[in-house]
Amino acid sequence: MLTVNAIAATSATAPLVRTTIERRDVGPHDVLIEIRYAGICHSDIHTVRGEWGDIAYPQTVGHEIVGRVTEVGAEVTRHAVGDRVGVGCMVNSCRECENCEAGQEQYCLNGNTGTYTAVDRDGTITQGGYSTHIVVDQDFVLRVPESIPYEAAAPLLCAGITTYSPLSHWRAGPGRRVAVVGMGGLGHMAVKIAAAMGAEVTVLSQTLGKREDGLAFGAKDYYATGDPATFDTLKNTFDLIINTVSAPIDMNSYLRLLRLEGTLVSVGAPPEPLPVKVFTLFNNRRSFAGSSIGGIAETQEMLDFCAEREIAPEVEVISAEAVNEAYDRVLKSDVRYRFVIDIDTLR
Amino acid sequence: MLTVNAIAATSATAPLVRTTIERRDVGPHDVLIEIRYAGICHSDIHTVRGEWGDIAYPQTVGHEIVGRVTEVGAEVTRHAVGDRVGVGCMVNSCRECENCEAGQEQYCLNGNTGTYTAVDRDGTITQGGYSTHIVVDQDFVLRVPESIPYEAAAPLLCAGITTYSPLSHWRAGPGRRVAVVGMGGLGHMAVKIAAAMGAEVTVLSQTLGKREDGLAFGAKDYYATGDPATFDTLKNTFDLIINTVSAPIDMNSYLRLLRLEGTLVSVGAPPEPLPVKVFTLFNNRRSFAGSSIGGIAETQEMLDFCAEREIAPEVEVISAEAVNEAYDRVLKSDVRYRFVIDIDTLR
Repeated sequence: MLTVNAIAATSATAPLVRTTIERRDVGPHDVLIEIRYAGICHSDIHTVRGEWGDIAYPQTVGHEIVGRVTEVGAEVTRHAVGDRVGVGCMVNSCRECENCEAGQEQYCLNGNTGTYTAVDRDGTITQGGYSTHIVVDQDFVLRVPESIPYEAAAPLLCAGITTYSPLSHWRAGPGRRVAVVGMGGLGHMAVKIAAAMGAEVTVLSQTLGKREDGLAFGAKDYYATGDPATFDTLKNTFDLIINTVSAPIDMNSYLRLLRLEGTLVSVGAPPEPLPVKVFTLFNNRRSFAGSSIGGIAETQEMLDFCAEREIAPEVEVISAEAVNEAYDRVLKSDVRYRFVIDIDTLR
Repeated sequence: MLTVNAIAATSATAPLVRTTIERRDVGPHDVLIEIRYAGICHSDIHTVRGEWGDIAYPQTVGHEIVGRVTEVGAEVTRHAVGDRVGVGCMVNSCRECENCEAGQEQYCLNGNTGTYTAVDRDGTITQGGYSTHIVVDQDFVLRVPESIPYEAAAPLLCAGITTYSPLSHWRAGPGRRVAVVGMGGLGHMAVKIAAAMGAEVTVLSQTLGKREDGLAFGAKDYYATGDPATFDTLKNTFDLIINTVSAPIDMNSYLRLLRLEGTLVSVGAPPEPLPVKVFTLFNNRRSFAGSSIGGIAETQEMLDFCAEREIAPEVEVISAEAVNEAYDRVLKSDVRYRFVIDIDTLR
């Protein structure tokens, strides 16, 4: 067992605190990673505050993790000491169900093992990346190309793959009109990736406050959803809409913006059921879909794509001490566009 | 103008009555059809009873029409006197929008012209097929192969294409598991067509009452949705679910039956918005879609497919006098599986 520094939540309401946690010994298929940066995802906040269900405390979160390999198990072949690697939202899966066999471990029918709050194979609760080290099975560790700025690589492991996967699956590319709803951590990555894929990208954000950023990231148009005229102007326009907003929005208004055989994919996750009008789906033969992160192979593909296209998230690097303040700012949407913890400040 | 016998609704509450209606003179691009059979669709009942919005009375409905061409306009090239032809749910469209240009006139962005209750190009309200004759632009008239039993051909023009189109679009075929929700006029056609396409078909019906029929039509399995165990047994099973039920059902229960990247397509149309859980869509990357009839070219393709595969609806032929009784029986689901009016009884 390895005792390592970490930041943990001790209850649903208390601020996060500095503490230590245990990591398992490096097994034959494991990789020990010295973490350098960990992104702050809105999911982290929902989780530690118990908004997605009760959890056991203390709990360390964080599933946007990059660092260096410092030790490998005897049978590890995929990674070597010194490699720059990453870990995303899951650290294992059953590897036997039809979805795992299809390389879609995120949809493991027996439930993938989340990077935090999940029951690990040894019965312990998984602890996330706000920590100096982590031990992970080699098959769930990604190669992070050196050309991606180190601190910017972290958010690719969640925000990057969460948007890349549906954009790839629903064929964002030349001649396709793609709208991105929301210009936060996920949204700004969706804009960059969709534009790099060659799609014609429009941002739909509450206000025009981030318009210049959106256009700089590759969007062609930028509309305020606070202006009702937007929904008339853009009727029957898009082949694909990626909704990154987790708050409940009037999905029917957005569905009406889809042209023939268009799909609205939600990667934002309101817990409440959303009312959907079937007649709105009839028109243009529209689809309303969901998508959750991506498989391991696809996550590697995304990292390589971002390296090749020189795409990286916009990040604000903070010290470990600033995590609670950063949480408050995330809740106020006061971040452009992702907080990343410099884990060296935790050593 | 041609005065022809017809059956019409005179109010939302009165029984249908025998009457006469006017048909326009045959224009250069028009075809005059002597109607032989007209199917009774549940939509007809919703419409005449004002359940889908107010309409003008008197109104003749019916959009499952087959008959013979008895006159053609000077510039008609697609049909000749004596041809056996059909007319479905639409008789025109703008022909200019991107959807019409894509051969998807059913999704005409300017609104297709419905076979009944729509405003026609001459300003009159279109009148449907419960009538001895109809005049229709040649481009919206289908060829009905002689090998399809005459009376059975009528329901293909709505029930047939409504189910064929999503089955074709979402690739029902060998190796694909398809469920059909509801075993009525649409559902029984969905079973026959999906089975003919080579898919493995399961029927999900309230009870097992029509099980023998379902298996005879080509289904491999048949489950009662009244039994909660069905929803456990069939979790993560289907690539495609065609919902033919118009009453509001718990869509999330059915969405959970979709396997990886499966789609639930509703062709039934509850007017109320249906609550959809985004987390249910996340799992397996599921989609919830709508589909509405089909384009003209695809409708022809469906008729040719049914002729080649010897697929036809199960019908109960009735006389014109029996229409009101038939409506009552449709509302009680007391029909196997489609009423068709013998229009000769209206001459």
